[in-house]
Amino acid sequence: MSAVVTASATSRMTAEYVNPVIAATRTVFSTMLNATATRTGLSLRSDPSEVSQPSSGVSAVIGLSGQAAGTLVLNLTSSTAIEILHRLVGAEVTQVNSEVCDAVGEVTNMIAGHAKAQLAKYSLLISIPNVVSGDDHTVHFPSNVIPMVLSFDSDLGPFTIEVGFSNLPVK
Amino acid sequence: MSAVVTASATSRMTAEYVNPVIAATRTVFSTMLNATATRTGLSLRSDPSEVSQPSSGVSAVIGLSGQAAGTLVLNLTSSTAIEILHRLVGAEVTQVNSEVCDAVGEVTNMIAGHAKAQLAKYSLLISIPNVVSGDDHTVHFPSNVIPMVLSFDSDLGPFTIEVGFSNLPVK
Repeated sequence: MSAVVTASATSRMTAEYVNPVIAATRTVFSTMLNATATRTGLSLRSDPSEVSQPSSGVSAVIGLSGQAAGTLVLNLTSSTAIEILHRLVGAEVTQVNSEVCDAVGEVTNMIAGHAKAQLAKYSLLISIPNVVSGDDHTVHFPSNVIPMVLSFDSDLGPFTIEVGFSNLPVK
Repeated sequence: MSAVVTASATSRMTAEYVNPVIAATRTVFSTMLNATATRTGLSLRSDPSEVSQPSSGVSAVIGLSGQAAGTLVLNLTSSTAIEILHRLVGAEVTQVNSEVCDAVGEVTNMIAGHAKAQLAKYSLLISIPNVVSGDDHTVHFPSNVIPMVLSFDSDLGPFTIEVGFSNLPVK
């Protein structure tokens, strides 16, 4: 398979992931958080050297591997992350702690799980979520990956989800 | 399978990962970076609420999934990350940019790839590496995961590798 064909297949796969991720996000926000998530934007990051804007909040990273390899990254503000904990288990905290990170990781895990179930042909398995906190951190994708960036607004605040797959064959 | 048995199996798996990760790290540092990596410490993070120390440098996260689900996280200082780019491709830069992140991601990918090859019985696949930069960020594991923390010293500076697997059955 030529590199061009492989890249094209990867782009198609990324595009195929759009609707499952949107549906999964809506479902998880509705059923688990009693909140409405609305997609407000969609873009493909076309410049490989471009990176995410620094996030002053919380990011969750979860791996996807099977017939392709990729990751899903959820970026949200600290206040949205804190509100996710509150909606999920009722706990009220004032700053991001390990409970907040667990709640954000669990929501990310559920979104990735729902989305992969709709793309069974890729036989994807998900890893565990790692949650990043700290001022002005940036989560980079490899420059050979062109992630899809989905922007959402919700009752809990705005957030983005980035999904990208490598065009390298999985060994 | 009871929860106790599952947790025990996961702890055994985490322990089984120690030597493959050490060997993979030494091999990648030696062959790709012309550097010597020496393990200086090994611990299991026993308190689930304990989190990594904030990193003022660069962290790379890569997912592992198959008969178990987990991640491998490489934490290093900005200067070590910049030196990895220099050793890998000869480029000299003064601050962490997308080239540095790519180099750190590639090294993490190679370490995870070498390690998983030695644990074929778990049929692990790896995702793509996401690299986190930014002052004082922290990469959290889910609190139901007890990661193994491996400390290394090297010609390029000190670094740590954390590996953790979930005790949840993979669906």
